[in-house]
Amino acid sequence: MARSAIQSAPSNAPVALISDFGYRDHYAGVMRGVIASIAPHAAVIDVSHGVAPQDIVAGALILRESWRFFPPDTVFVVVVDPGVGTPRRPVAVETNSGVRLVGPDNGVLWMTIDQAGLKHAVHLQSERYFLSRQSSTFHGRDIFAPVAAHLSNGVALARLGAPITDLERLTVPDPVESGDQLIGLVIYQDTYGNLVSNLTRARIERLQARFPSRRLLVRIGSSVPFAIARTYGDVPKDSPLALFGSFEMLEIAVREGNAARIFAAGPGAEIRVRAQP
Amino acid sequence: MARSAIQSAPSNAPVALISDFGYRDHYAGVMRGVIASIAPHAAVIDVSHGVAPQDIVAGALILRESWRFFPPDTVFVVVVDPGVGTPRRPVAVETNSGVRLVGPDNGVLWMTIDQAGLKHAVHLQSERYFLSRQSSTFHGRDIFAPVAAHLSNGVALARLGAPITDLERLTVPDPVESGDQLIGLVIYQDTYGNLVSNLTRARIERLQARFPSRRLLVRIGSSVPFAIARTYGDVPKDSPLALFGSFEMLEIAVREGNAARIFAAGPGAEIRVRAQP
Amino acid sequence: MARSAIQSAPSNAPVALISDFGYRDHYAGVMRGVIASIAPHAAVIDVSHGVAPQDIVAGALILRESWRFFPPDTVFVVVVDPGVGTPRRPVAVETNSGVRLVGPDNGVLWMTIDQAGLKHAVHLQSERYFLSRQSSTFHGRDIFAPVAAHLSNGVALARLGAPITDLERLTVPDPVESGDQLIGLVIYQDTYGNLVSNLTRARIERLQARFPSRRLLVRIGSSVPFAIARTYGDVPKDSPLALFGSFEMLEIAVREGNAARIFAAGPGAEIRVRAQP
Repeated sequence: MARSAIQSAPSNAPVALISDFGYRDHYAGVMRGVIASIAPHAAVIDVSHGVAPQDIVAGALILRESWRFFPPDTVFVVVVDPGVGTPRRPVAVETNSGVRLVGPDNGVLWMTIDQAGLKHAVHLQSERYFLSRQSSTFHGRDIFAPVAAHLSNGVALARLGAPITDLERLTVPDPVESGDQLIGLVIYQDTYGNLVSNLTRARIERLQARFPSRRLLVRIGSSVPFAIARTYGDVPKDSPLALFGSFEMLEIAVREGNAARIFAAGPGAEIRVRAQP
Repeated sequence: MARSAIQSAPSNAPVALISDFGYRDHYAGVMRGVIASIAPHAAVIDVSHGVAPQDIVAGALILRESWRFFPPDTVFVVVVDPGVGTPRRPVAVETNSGVRLVGPDNGVLWMTIDQAGLKHAVHLQSERYFLSRQSSTFHGRDIFAPVAAHLSNGVALARLGAPITDLERLTVPDPVESGDQLIGLVIYQDTYGNLVSNLTRARIERLQARFPSRRLLVRIGSSVPFAIARTYGDVPKDSPLALFGSFEMLEIAVREGNAARIFAAGPGAEIRVRAQP
Repeated sequence: MARSAIQSAPSNAPVALISDFGYRDHYAGVMRGVIASIAPHAAVIDVSHGVAPQDIVAGALILRESWRFFPPDTVFVVVVDPGVGTPRRPVAVETNSGVRLVGPDNGVLWMTIDQAGLKHAVHLQSERYFLSRQSSTFHGRDIFAPVAAHLSNGVALARLGAPITDLERLTVPDPVESGDQLIGLVIYQDTYGNLVSNLTRARIERLQARFPSRRLLVRIGSSVPFAIARTYGDVPKDSPLALFGSFEMLEIAVREGNAARIFAAGPGAEIRVRAQP
């Protein structure tokens, strides 16, 4: 039975869900059912269940790009968990900025912990906050959803398990500087085919500062070079451009088109920014 | 920071979301997070985020076919916005029937304004109702979601920007009458492969009235002609039929099958209704 | 107009939705709008709208695998309805365990009725609980959603129509025993490519009990045989295994891989468990 004896607090924190469960099966829906059973007054907000199966980096980026826009007491549940049924630990984390994170300790939480600041982390071990029967394949339903619901209800993180400090880390590779070039790569491809890189505005500005009189040009793979624009409106329809999109990273796009398709590129593709002599 | 200083009113209007953000990325989820931050008590209802990328006509039809079935004070946010980052205007509209619409002024709102009646429209300019930092690529997050949340909280439309009257219009083409034929086209294809046309019941009835003793037959492209049925049950399994579906427009379907696949047709395909001699 | 004159009760039961509407159109969204219009305080929880079009068995399994994890007063609306517009009956069911079910009487509800216990079923006929104009193609909007909202509001099942007892049944085939083999089949394929069979733990244990000194090996189609594991962690990455997954049925999987793709198999594929001499 999913309904727990532990009653819900009068005022609930929102619970936000990220997973690679997709939209065909009942897996995400069952997590919502478990949360509604334990914390009926919690607002449950889907961030996305469309993370590519077992793609920990994509899950980590989606969480990192989302958490800032949610209420500061939100409990995020992130289930991208290729290691379910192996000794990887289930964890819950409290950050300095207030948001809490629940999921497998496989790095998927790390980029957000890094931004929001680690306050406290525990290895989930108190089975009284799990469903009473746990499967070996669906910890989203049996462990993560009920724990998040109890956190929403006001249960203290410290009651969920023993403190840990050796959380699994995951970072995107740093761009490399080489002469008048900055060499980065695509870290995320979105629905529109926009290709988000690991090149921050600061890195690009530093390159420009080193070559103040030169123009920066961008290439993806062996493409012709194109300019960094401020917005889509700066180029004609169907033209490629590089711009700082919603991730605040350099992003390759095609106005009203699909850059991933046009450049036949995706995550891992090389992006070069050159200060053109 | 997403959380706004402007507090929420005691009773909130529902906020309904339509977009082409798809279900892979966090874009729709982040809009929900922004709304939860500003209007935590608003019910947020997804209509669809599966509009084909940048397909303004599909977005407009989905809104037109939905608004009537929602509470009359609903605030609809529609983000199908190929012109983000160009000078197209962000707008908010109040209709005579009560529903409010927020989105880009690119025609996506027009068919519904036409049905519900235009009461008041504004060009969104008051940045105090936007997120404090706006990107040039994600107005759904930075402008439309926060504005909708403030409308849900009770902020008056007039405070959001200057009134405008020259909204961008978008209509589906009218069918053409030619002798004993009515020539229309497919305007929408749904998940099941049903093909919805621009032929209203009134237009079909007028043709029948002109040829009262003849039988109306329907062809899509160069298909064999088939009859107008009242319901799927009127034809055997796997047979094509034309009927008035949930859009209240003539719709080409195949009982328990996929008409789009079987007729290799989609939006734009010609549909002829003939009063057969 | 969707808003009903019948007012909502002070405390609402949750409404959970399952359909094959997919995520492209407004169909699922419009059901949410109808429910919000009639029962504005009801929590509406999506289980899945990704059931394969008109796949009654998949819809039935998704409901069966979900209901237990929801609050016991939940009203489930299940719209997988290839027979809409034929004489198949719209029904509502109350189970002994408390959950209520609303949908077409085509078998999609049966596996759950079988588990939860049939208390009372009615043929939906009271049009005052439907939308005032009903289409012949979208009973999800016009009949099932409004009925569920009224049930959530506290309307008694008996007021919705005449009692019936001859509900349409649907079951998955039983496995067959043959010598030292148990022959089953795949009944469900999930997003990850896991292949769920009709082989229960009890059936497998009975085979083992008959051949206590032998080892059970599993084959799908003409695959090489592999062992039954306790969890993914028992085999190396990319290896096939059989295990009892979240359905509590024997499931063919590939650790961090896609079994459906690797074995080119799906629903209907044969699975043999043999007590190897």
